[in-house]
Amino acid sequence: MTDPLRLGIAGLGTVGMGVVGIVQRQADLLAARAGRPIVITAVSARSQRDRGLDLSSYAWEDDPVALANRPDVDVVIEVMGGHDGPAKALSEAALAAGKDLVSANKALLAIHGQALAEAAEAQGRVIRFEAAVAGGIPVVKSLMEGLAGNGITRVLGVMNGSCNYILTRMEDAGLSYAEVFAEADALGYLEADPELDVGGIDAGHKLALLAAVAFGTQVDFAGVVLEGIGSVTIEDIRQAADMGYRIKLLGVAQMTGRGLEQRMQPCLVPAGSPLAQLPGGTNMVVLEGDAVGQIVLRGPGAGAGPTASAVMADVMDLARGTRYPTFGQPAASLRRARAATAAIPAPYYLRLQLLDKPGALAKVATALGDAGVSIDRMRQYDHVDAAAPVLIVTHRTTRTALDDALSRFATTGVVVGSPVALRIEAV
Amino acid sequence: MTDPLRLGIAGLGTVGMGVVGIVQRQADLLAARAGRPIVITAVSARSQRDRGLDLSSYAWEDDPVALANRPDVDVVIEVMGGHDGPAKALSEAALAAGKDLVSANKALLAIHGQALAEAAEAQGRVIRFEAAVAGGIPVVKSLMEGLAGNGITRVLGVMNGSCNYILTRMEDAGLSYAEVFAEADALGYLEADPELDVGGIDAGHKLALLAAVAFGTQVDFAGVVLEGIGSVTIEDIRQAADMGYRIKLLGVAQMTGRGLEQRMQPCLVPAGSPLAQLPGGTNMVVLEGDAVGQIVLRGPGAGAGPTASAVMADVMDLARGTRYPTFGQPAASLRRARAATAAIPAPYYLRLQLLDKPGALAKVATALGDAGVSIDRMRQYDHVDAAAPVLIVTHRTTRTALDDALSRFATTGVVVGSPVALRIEAV
Repeated sequence: MTDPLRLGIAGLGTVGMGVVGIVQRQADLLAARAGRPIVITAVSARSQRDRGLDLSSYAWEDDPVALANRPDVDVVIEVMGGHDGPAKALSEAALAAGKDLVSANKALLAIHGQALAEAAEAQGRVIRFEAAVAGGIPVVKSLMEGLAGNGITRVLGVMNGSCNYILTRMEDAGLSYAEVFAEADALGYLEADPELDVGGIDAGHKLALLAAVAFGTQVDFAGVVLEGIGSVTIEDIRQAADMGYRIKLLGVAQMTGRGLEQRMQPCLVPAGSPLAQLPGGTNMVVLEGDAVGQIVLRGPGAGAGPTASAVMADVMDLARGTRYPTFGQPAASLRRARAATAAIPAPYYLRLQLLDKPGALAKVATALGDAGVSIDRMRQYDHVDAAAPVLIVTHRTTRTALDDALSRFATTGVVVGSPVALRIEAV
Repeated sequence: MTDPLRLGIAGLGTVGMGVVGIVQRQADLLAARAGRPIVITAVSARSQRDRGLDLSSYAWEDDPVALANRPDVDVVIEVMGGHDGPAKALSEAALAAGKDLVSANKALLAIHGQALAEAAEAQGRVIRFEAAVAGGIPVVKSLMEGLAGNGITRVLGVMNGSCNYILTRMEDAGLSYAEVFAEADALGYLEADPELDVGGIDAGHKLALLAAVAFGTQVDFAGVVLEGIGSVTIEDIRQAADMGYRIKLLGVAQMTGRGLEQRMQPCLVPAGSPLAQLPGGTNMVVLEGDAVGQIVLRGPGAGAGPTASAVMADVMDLARGTRYPTFGQPAASLRRARAATAAIPAPYYLRLQLLDKPGALAKVATALGDAGVSIDRMRQYDHVDAAAPVLIVTHRTTRTALDDALSRFATTGVVVGSPVALRIEAV
């Protein structure tokens, strides 16, 4: 295999141009490592304009589907984005035309991954998607190959750098969510639709992909419990710190007796844990296996260089002849997992506002007790106006019991507004 | 490829039995992921005794070379250890017999890796060695495949859990090196020849292997500057902490204008860095590439489960048909790097004992200045007997200039004994 591997790149945004840059700059290194030259033969994007690198030797296609059908393309690189429309049409066309597909498109794969994996296997082609999860961190490879001898017990992590930036910045600067959100938006740290970031959707796509690989299940984004960071207040961040925790938007996937639990939600993690200490826009993924124990991977979760690095990892694997099914085993063998939403008990952090009435605290304690939730630690603070903030850390309990307690709070007549309830995840 | 992949395991210590355990326990999972069954056909060890798992269906070979020559073995797994003798004979025999080789033997590969890689390629076979570096962490894979699109700029890390345990325990318990060494030895944390651990040799083997992969050079263990942790005192640990640092046995490999610099030595790292916070027997490797930036990998560096997990990662790759040269590019294309030992400047931490004489400090400062070393921070402490401890953090300087300063100290007549000089590594 000394023929060049010929790439067609669909999408010339920062990631696409990052890939072009690596292929141009590192031609000798890539050829030495792959045992064959890596060349770009064709590119496609919405507009032909100067992007800072010389693209004149590549064929230009206005239509990405036409790029997929070119006989001089072996591997189609999809770095357009969007879970429908052109990206989907291109991906399907590439596989149908007998091309391998390298995709950075977490949304597309989280939603249509099973169908695409089946289409790839029907054609004897492969889909690789390292760049779709946690940017430059080789987490898909570590999970799918590096831990291939392990029964995976849990996958968790911080998978959206923008959310981690917002939460870290709130804590460091003592600013409100709204203030930091506006700041991040102005700095261009957020997606065009910011809800993709702060609503946990983008990170949820990544979690669903990792869960499929980890547990041999069909990718099931609809089964991810999604809670964004919009409800996290600076008070919660401060109080959590006071109790020895930090708040992170944490994705957790775990196979339980009741089914596959996938959650992407703000959680408390112990302040001393690696996850708690993750700064700014960085990502961290923790992989747990029955043989290896715990592996922690940390790195840049976004950006042209890191994401292009991940795309090139997939390209280099294909150039070296590495081929296996999209999610690590044949698509037809992936089980359809039942979604479990409240299977794994955990301690919870509760913050509520208590009316200044005799017996108020007792009523709350009774409501918890009646729901079967026991208290590990409790703190009541000074009254502000007529209400006093109360913090409670519970012992391990189920979400069902906790929800029962929360609904009992509503009938006590002493709890003001909606209590905040955040899971404390053991790391 | 649905034929079983047939393993012959040479060595039935904790790692070998860990591999047997995974193959027996996870047969279905492994077959689903590999697309073919993974079976053990033969084993070899020094003695046939009860090891807790049923080995009766495997052929037994007293002689590992006979195991390598069996026609019913596709992949030989070498988990015997030792850089010469039976392990070397077995490895050569396996390749000569046309078998792929999975090795956990860092010493053998660090010393004979180039010759073995050439032998493998002459036969069209491959050698895989994930288990030889940093136990369960998929670091060879991350570097060789996950970062294959990167020019690697630096590889560094804590690669010997026993040394990290000793240094961490000294700091936590305020004990001397000798006390903790005795403790670790009694707990069985050290190799039969403890110098392999505390002398940095074992970690140096790992660093040499990573450097070869990172820089496309022939593995050169002889070129690793080795300093063990035996000279690290509790005073240095305390003083370093006081200045905002922790002391770690750090391996660093970097390509410089003067050649390949490989160092395994006690260094100071900023207390807030992930490396500084690494607890006990854990390993951490930092990979830096021109596209990806910095990737940090953390996990268990030793033990039956983690090491067997790494062995199985290699086995699963072979089962899936992944094949490429031992160090990531053909052995004949690996350059013979010149060893550079003092190419990269750094700040240094100095601790010295100063006689209680007028002008003593001025003489030390003058010696540093004359050698071209400038002072960033200095602290003089109370006299103990006739000498006062002085701590100096220098600005970035070369090791050559620093050594010049150290030799000038000797002629001042005010410096008692040998000063301690430790590099401060930016992470």
